[in-house]
Amino acid sequence: MLINSDLHQLRSDWGESYYPIVPGHEIAGIVTAVGDDVGNFSVGDKVGVGCMVNSCLDCALCKDGKQQYCQNDCVWTYNSVDMFGDMDITYGGYSTHIVVREEFVVTIPDEIELPHAAPLLCAGITLYSPINKFCNSGEIMTVGIVGFGGLGHMGVKILKELGHKIVVISSSEKKKERAMAAGAESYFVVNSSTDLPSEAVGMCDVVLDTVSVNRDMSKYFKAVRNEGTYCILGLPPNPLEVEPFDLVAKRLNLTGSLIGGMEETEEMLNFCAHHNIRPDIEIISSDQVTQFNQSINW
Amino acid sequence: MLINSDLHQLRSDWGESYYPIVPGHEIAGIVTAVGDDVGNFSVGDKVGVGCMVNSCLDCALCKDGKQQYCQNDCVWTYNSVDMFGDMDITYGGYSTHIVVREEFVVTIPDEIELPHAAPLLCAGITLYSPINKFCNSGEIMTVGIVGFGGLGHMGVKILKELGHKIVVISSSEKKKERAMAAGAESYFVVNSSTDLPSEAVGMCDVVLDTVSVNRDMSKYFKAVRNEGTYCILGLPPNPLEVEPFDLVAKRLNLTGSLIGGMEETEEMLNFCAHHNIRPDIEIISSDQVTQFNQSINW
Repeated sequence: MLINSDLHQLRSDWGESYYPIVPGHEIAGIVTAVGDDVGNFSVGDKVGVGCMVNSCLDCALCKDGKQQYCQNDCVWTYNSVDMFGDMDITYGGYSTHIVVREEFVVTIPDEIELPHAAPLLCAGITLYSPINKFCNSGEIMTVGIVGFGGLGHMGVKILKELGHKIVVISSSEKKKERAMAAGAESYFVVNSSTDLPSEAVGMCDVVLDTVSVNRDMSKYFKAVRNEGTYCILGLPPNPLEVEPFDLVAKRLNLTGSLIGGMEETEEMLNFCAHHNIRPDIEIISSDQVTQFNQSINW
Repeated sequence: MLINSDLHQLRSDWGESYYPIVPGHEIAGIVTAVGDDVGNFSVGDKVGVGCMVNSCLDCALCKDGKQQYCQNDCVWTYNSVDMFGDMDITYGGYSTHIVVREEFVVTIPDEIELPHAAPLLCAGITLYSPINKFCNSGEIMTVGIVGFGGLGHMGVKILKELGHKIVVISSSEKKKERAMAAGAESYFVVNSSTDLPSEAVGMCDVVLDTVSVNRDMSKYFKAVRNEGTYCILGLPPNPLEVEPFDLVAKRLNLTGSLIGGMEETEEMLNFCAHHNIRPDIEIISSDQVTQFNQSINW
């Protein structure tokens, strides 16, 4: 991990605008040291750090356990301005150690191994939080998952545990078998040349869209019933083009959701531990990253 | 009003693609005749017809009183395919008479004069329905109204009656005095060169946007609090450009609303009668329309 003196050396070599980024926001590990005032953790504890490492903890939203929506801006785990100011920006989890204030550390339940815990800290909570918000009325709902990847497959697993009917919408047939095995009840292909089939129109109470690519959103909005919810979780690079009549003609609720608060993250880990929910993972070494990335069948 | 033979003559003169449009969807008048099976109206009744004249009345949404969202498509008052088939398209209220099935006719309360009743049948219900849906929890809310025109001023009047705090957002200072007089508590100017002032950021629980012009929506979304609702009522001609992070960063509910159902329209008329709410109107003759339209200070 870079330390401050490295950063200053790099800046003097490359210029003041040089900001090396150390990514990694799904961090699982063992506590090696605690500060004097730390009350909740001890050396040897199995813990996790997700997408954020700080927030004001004082605004109404922080006090409501929604630190990710902090009104004074939370500090992301990497490439965010460091509130403590001893480093210019924060550096993430592709590192041997990380120092984090205890309010942004979660306990990983005994049942969950470190490699499985890591993706839960972003992909897991990114799905758990909107499911908690939009699919937790106690009634069985039909819920669409757009995209069956790191996020989408966690959505299917959590929704299945809650007893909901799951519809996966993907851009090809490639992932059908895996999606159905994971618990989807139906699977539809929507892409630039294929529209949602008529039997799927209006069938979903809620759709959770995990795709971060710009597309013709009208095709996807069709899956939602009157007054239903379409929640984006991915972040396409360009603005979504939203036809006003798509919203007006059925009072569609187009919304989004951003990870979850610290208590909710702890709750999600316990939920996954209790219900034996784990992400599908494959462990590689860091020198295999480029090769793996090129070979993966997205 | 055009009758079928006129239409056929026009088509033979102008070609089959010639569809003359007779607009008018805020129709207030007196019943001059009723069919044999009509049970709810008699000759002499003071009645209104709004934006729709038919729907299937059989789908779940029609049965739930939401005919405007009919799953088999409702029939708009003009330029819509006529379900009865004796005319190719429907013709609207700029006419001496109109024939409408009784389910799409509302009774205008005694207290409301015909000229005041007419705009309630579109502008009034277009605001009443989303206020009913989003601002009717019993708690006092801060509600933004974007645009202070035919729709917006009705929103202010209805919201004021319900005791809500009202924030008007307009593109210039021109309407400030009228908006404040109507009941707004504050007034902010947002346009292509002016952003929402910082004191207004996040202040609204709900924003009702009545403007049908494409704009930088991010400036307006700022007015909404975390997990608040932004409801569009106008229909800008091009897609809304929605920054994904605007939705995700505060779980914004972007939605829309379309007039209201028939029972809700009747309820709105009774609400306006009971609370002495009337639209601001100016009566002109039909030969003044062009001149008036050019002179009006939009």
